[in-house]
Amino acid sequence: MTAYNLGSLLYEGKAKRVFATDQPDLVAVEYKDDATAFNALKKAQLAGKGELNCRISALLFEHLAARGIPTHYLGVDGSRWMLARPVRVIPIEVVIRNVAAGSLCKQMPIAPGTPLEPPLLDLYYKDDGFGDPLLTEARLEHLGLVTPEQRRQLEELARQVNRELLALFDSVGLQLVDFKIELGHTASGELVVADEISPDTCRLWDREVMDSQDRILDKDRFRQDLGGVVEAYGEVLKRVQGACPPPRVYR
Amino acid sequence: MTAYNLGSLLYEGKAKRVFATDQPDLVAVEYKDDATAFNALKKAQLAGKGELNCRISALLFEHLAARGIPTHYLGVDGSRWMLARPVRVIPIEVVIRNVAAGSLCKQMPIAPGTPLEPPLLDLYYKDDGFGDPLLTEARLEHLGLVTPEQRRQLEELARQVNRELLALFDSVGLQLVDFKIELGHTASGELVVADEISPDTCRLWDREVMDSQDRILDKDRFRQDLGGVVEAYGEVLKRVQGACPPPRVYR
Ligand SMILES: Nc1ncnc2c1ncn2[C@@H]1O[C@H](COP(=O)(O)OP(=O)(O)O)[C@@H](O)[C@H]1O
Ligand SMILES: Nc1ncnc2c1ncn2[C@@H]1O[C@H](COP(=O)(O)OP(=O)(O)O)[C@@H](O)[C@H]1O
Ligand SMILES: [Mg+2]
Ligand SMILES: [Mg+2]
Repeated sequence: MTAYNLGSLLYEGKAKRVFATDQPDLVAVEYKDDATAFNALKKAQLAGKGELNCRISALLFEHLAARGIPTHYLGVDGSRWMLARPVRVIPIEVVIRNVAAGSLCKQMPIAPGTPLEPPLLDLYYKDDGFGDPLLTEARLEHLGLVTPEQRRQLEELARQVNRELLALFDSVGLQLVDFKIELGHTASGELVVADEISPDTCRLWDREVMDSQDRILDKDRFRQDLGGVVEAYGEVLKRVQGACPPPRVYR
Repeated sequence: MTAYNLGSLLYEGKAKRVFATDQPDLVAVEYKDDATAFNALKKAQLAGKGELNCRISALLFEHLAARGIPTHYLGVDGSRWMLARPVRVIPIEVVIRNVAAGSLCKQMPIAPGTPLEPPLLDLYYKDDGFGDPLLTEARLEHLGLVTPEQRRQLEELARQVNRELLALFDSVGLQLVDFKIELGHTASGELVVADEISPDTCRLWDREVMDSQDRILDKDRFRQDLGGVVEAYGEVLKRVQGACPPPRVYR
């Protein structure tokens, strides 16, 4: 793959920095060690988290690509840098829930751990100022962020991602409880999975562990002050490493 | 209309008491002076509110009935008692918004006062324990409270109610900003508008008043500590009295 030079900082978020490069079709995403939860009310630095999330994300994007799912991912450069196609990110968080957990159980009479069949798809408006509120179809239509056809397309893509990740994680003894993805359009108008897919954005439970806290291998360890956050993410990396193609290395 | 005798208390809510009567097809609803807001975190007694809401609700139900809309309402008995058909209330609050206000403006980038065209319909799960959360179509389907066909039916009925109330309030100089209704099925399975329709459950602005606080003639006066709550409700009663059929009096 061709070499590139880093350009200006395009966007700094809570977990990553996105940089332009000297190639118009390439951005560089730096994964930070910052951990945030509850709309950034809770914050910490977790040494090693950025690297783990970058490596896990890269492996999952490699897997999705191998399964024919379009993503922004192009490769990695070192341990915390990811190269990607620049996209106009749609400000909608698409959440798919295979098992009830988190906010859902505070808003609906569904006990944590209840299987959701079919998986529940929730759309949230990605805007920290409004607290990432849940969207109904009518509210989404009013916002005008996507056409009805684009909505169907992104929901279908998210369900495909779910099927692939469910099977992948299952094959390494992990239960994919739920996850969030962001989607965007490339310069040519292609809809792709963007951002990251990591223990920051997925709920993952160790299938072999019955204890409802010990089994948690995701950001809920941070949200609930369970400790061992980085260790848990390391365990996820170890598991998926065996099951995904190795990340393409840039330059 | 036939006389009746009061039976046992069936349900006491935040604003009303529902009693059985000696007639199986008749319940008596007593309107209380209790005011609550923010999921009952804020509470007060407002002398005269029960009577005003009962009388306003009766007039609005009379108007809806005259316009062919099925309701639970049968008549009034004294100033704070309403007679109604007993219904199985569907635990869904149907909110229709003609103008942006309240929680919507905290959850969406829409300035208060913005007209919503078409009117926005929001469904909430009526359960104080869960804080009356917003429902998506998928979440509603998962709860299984209504069939898809029943959902369409209740949304259509709510939109009909909106059209009638919009025109009615408009004719007396009031803007119907938004409102909440509850619907239920009668013993024979008919879907009807139940509960109450009052300044506790509608946002109503005086069309002649430009000041954004002075124009408020509904429960927002209580929520926002604006004072003059009962006076505002009295003004609403005065206006609708001229425009609706007089309430049928029971016994
Ligand atoms: N390929 C891409 N091109 C442009 N922006 C991207 C791409 N992938 C992700 N982003 C955006 O970059 C930001 C990533 O940083 P992050 O720290 O996760 O932000 P946030 O705090 O908004 O979640 C997000 O706004 C995300 O939508
Ligand atoms: N015709 C009816 N038959 C049976 N129950 C009714 C009828 N109309 C309204 N209700 C129910 O009676 C209760 C009215 O009391 P309210 O004080 O408003 O209760 P809440 O605090 O639950 O809002 C509500 O639960 C409402 O759904
Ligand atoms: Mg992010
Ligand atoms: Mg009520």
